Amino acid sequence: MLEQLKRDVYEANKLLSKHRLSSFIWGNVSGIDRKHGLIVLKPTGMSISDITPDDMVVVNLNGKRMEGKHLPSADTLTHIELYRSFPLINGISHSHARWCTIFAQMGLGIPALGTTHADYFHGEIPCTRKLRAYEIRGDYERETGSVIVERFQRGKISPEEMPGILVCNHGPYTWGRTPSEAVNNSVVMEEVAFMAWHCMALPDRYLVPMQKDLLERHYSRRKRGRIESDDSTDRDFSPYEQD
Amino acid sequence: MLEQLKRDVYEANKLLSKHRLSSFIWGNVSGIDRKHGLIVLKPTGMSISDITPDDMVVVNLNGKRMEGKHLPSADTLTHIELYRSFPLINGISHSHARWCTIFAQMGLGIPALGTTHADYFHGEIPCTRKLRAYEIRGDYERETGSVIVERFQRGKISPEEMPGILVCNHGPYTWGRTPSEAVNNSVVMEEVAFMAWHCMALPDRYLVPMQKDLLERHYSRRKRGRIESDDSTDRDFSPYEQD
Amino acid sequence: MLEQLKRDVYEANKLLSKHRLSSFIWGNVSGIDRKHGLIVLKPTGMSISDITPDDMVVVNLNGKRMEGKHLPSADTLTHIELYRSFPLINGISHSHARWCTIFAQMGLGIPALGTTHADYFHGEIPCTRKLRAYEIRGDYERETGSVIVERFQRGKISPEEMPGILVCNHGPYTWGRTPSEAVNNSVVMEEVAFMAWHCMALPDRYLVPMQKDLLERHYSRRKRGRIESDDSTDRDFSPYEQD
Amino acid sequence: MLEQLKRDVYEANKLLSKHRLSSFIWGNVSGIDRKHGLIVLKPTGMSISDITPDDMVVVNLNGKRMEGKHLPSADTLTHIELYRSFPLINGISHSHARWCTIFAQMGLGIPALGTTHADYFHGEIPCTRKLRAYEIRGDYERETGSVIVERFQRGKISPEEMPGILVCNHGPYTWGRTPSEAVNNSVVMEEVAFMAWHCMALPDRYLVPMQKDLLERHYSRRKRGRIESDDSTDRDFSPYEQD
Repeated sequence: MLEQLKRDVYEANKLLSKHRLSSFIWGNVSGIDRKHGLIVLKPTGMSISDITPDDMVVVNLNGKRMEGKHLPSADTLTHIELYRSFPLINGISHSHARWCTIFAQMGLGIPALGTTHADYFHGEIPCTRKLRAYEIRGDYERETGSVIVERFQRGKISPEEMPGILVCNHGPYTWGRTPSEAVNNSVVMEEVAFMAWHCMALPDRYLVPMQKDLLERHYSRRKRGRIESDDSTDRDFSPYEQD
Repeated sequence: MLEQLKRDVYEANKLLSKHRLSSFIWGNVSGIDRKHGLIVLKPTGMSISDITPDDMVVVNLNGKRMEGKHLPSADTLTHIELYRSFPLINGISHSHARWCTIFAQMGLGIPALGTTHADYFHGEIPCTRKLRAYEIRGDYERETGSVIVERFQRGKISPEEMPGILVCNHGPYTWGRTPSEAVNNSVVMEEVAFMAWHCMALPDRYLVPMQKDLLERHYSRRKRGRIESDDSTDRDFSPYEQD
Repeated sequence: MLEQLKRDVYEANKLLSKHRLSSFIWGNVSGIDRKHGLIVLKPTGMSISDITPDDMVVVNLNGKRMEGKHLPSADTLTHIELYRSFPLINGISHSHARWCTIFAQMGLGIPALGTTHADYFHGEIPCTRKLRAYEIRGDYERETGSVIVERFQRGKISPEEMPGILVCNHGPYTWGRTPSEAVNNSVVMEEVAFMAWHCMALPDRYLVPMQKDLLERHYSRRKRGRIESDDSTDRDFSPYEQD
Repeated sequence: MLEQLKRDVYEANKLLSKHRLSSFIWGNVSGIDRKHGLIVLKPTGMSISDITPDDMVVVNLNGKRMEGKHLPSADTLTHIELYRSFPLINGISHSHARWCTIFAQMGLGIPALGTTHADYFHGEIPCTRKLRAYEIRGDYERETGSVIVERFQRGKISPEEMPGILVCNHGPYTWGRTPSEAVNNSVVMEEVAFMAWHCMALPDRYLVPMQKDLLERHYSRRKRGRIESDDSTDRDFSPYEQD
């Protein structure tokens, strides 16, 4: 079942690997069939280069394995928590991508400093609080999902306008309307993390976030554009057009 | 029409991609036919690896599309503004290359610290001021071009001697006598941005720009040389030559 | 003799090279046959790409060459010292991997800042003290092994829970239950060194190690997992499972 | 004439390119035939991937072109000055390799911080003083050579024990007994520059050079070894050998 979604999730996992966000410390991309409430994940402990779409694992929103000869990712319960709380997302990408993980290890969000950031993320990319001892000792993977959701609720942030977060001391999660869009958001988040770090690292600099107007302009012109396109708009421009 | 220029612009866009200045966050290289006042640009929202020279878009200096089945880059009006104000340039390259973008996000110019810089850029590479709210909300892409031109006029800088600039909170623009020279200047600007950042990042260092004489020497010996050559001169050297 | 171990050591050396931890400044991976007390090493002064498993060198625990037409690594006595003192390890990897070597050159351990670290290393990765003049002038390579062992004894650290160390002013050593696991630990150590450096390099940050509970949780869930798997567990998860 | 040396110089230039020390901003490797006092250089303004050994240029120690249809490197007079003053070197490599150039731009030498450094360079790698205005305006390329020689004389440094230097605000020169050894020294110098920068960049660290004894030990054990081998010795080790 879900043959197309399995292929999509498989391809999205390969894309994550192609962008080198998951070498050795593998990442995991999942997708959901909202109609049937079924999630497709990469099997745990296996490299994407060693498997086929048939190796994908299907679980339901209660975490029960519905199909697949392998076990799903150890982080499955985190994915489930996000799909349950963010009803408009259909793909999730998790990795230990190095620049995002650096911010996660520092417990810092990624400030919005330029138009590359604004094209994809509507403001500072948040970082969760640290998990508490009882959350870590308890149902750890599910609590990881809960602390993400809590951060969005507390900050009144829309998961559609902010397609990613950093889990403190852990690493990034991103999402999107499809598994491949989730991976694309991982790639951009890694790039803006890289650039933000280098802005913050120069000594004796007083760094200010970008102008709110510029953030709005770029975020909204992207939003009006099509998915996975470049930093372009679909409008037919004409200001100069006179003849 | 403009078949040769389309090929040149196509090849220059591929060169930008080859030097990894435009992966994922695509860049855009354009060229102009000064005789006919026509500009060739890459279509918006398409990866250079998916298209051919035939997909290039032709617009006139009023921004009207004269040929092409696709829409041109969202940044077309910025390119037009530069071609209008800098009459000796025939190619423009724009990217979100990471090291240049870091300087742009900090609102800092790239200081001239060594001969690699001096071989191509006649002094510190400038950064524009921040755009004002009404400029962002108004005709944003055209204003981006205007703020570049303003910086050159205010600083009495020659666009022939300084073939590039950083747009504050955005990224680099470079230009040249041909589209491919514009890309070459992007590559060098990224390299000198990388090196300048690492000179500036060491704590407790008092960094001074290079000697003016050394800047002049290297800039002028390059200028006397041919386009796109290495850091060499064409003069037949002979100081030792005695026999 | 030891044909399988020779192949394993050969493959592990190739893996080290594949992960670019040993380009030009070559590294060296060894393996031990505990039953016969024989160690297999890469020959000295030869690139792994120029040799075959047959070129591997066999020495005993007294350092006597038992087989092989080449001389073993110059660091052989360090390997021997580790095999003698850490009876449960069967493979050792040594390189001048750049990020680990940076920590070694600073004489700093690598602090535990995130789950990537905790998945493999049970706490801060230690750095040895500086070698003393008489140790350097004397039996230098053997003393390098001794100073590693001393650091584990002084710190009451288990070599099974901490599969690596930094030798001050020199570089990293890692180990494992097999030669390839030793290399995998080198790869992870290089990655966590990279990320830790960038957490430490931001000015004006007060950096604290990760929560002890999180360290324990991740270290123990990995330990329960299989060797060389990803950050996943083998347990069949079920918290949500109700139907 | 000098067909073998042309091939050697050609291969050394390709090696420089392979190690990515000369992409775009090309470097230049030369070799000398001491018997005939003739130097072979890469032609100026040409990429190594576009030429063959036959394109190499031969000049004598007075700078007169003796063979070759192209002009030699613009830096030819610097090479000549070094061959004249350092009679035991037979190959020279010059590049704008980024990490070495960063040190050159800061006017800083590369401190000896670890055994990777000590294996190849007998102490801190020096940086020249800034060139004076009349030196820059005068016979600039020859003066660049002179300021290198002056630094070695002033510091009583042996060019055999210190096979490289940084030219202030410019970039690195390295040399060796052969052109390929000169390139190898460029590669190692770039690596130790990378690592030293990252040791120096951490805030609030008090960085001390490595122990003199360790420097001596590693430098001398390499020296006793063969050229271009790894960090190994040729001695048959035996301290444990009893049976």
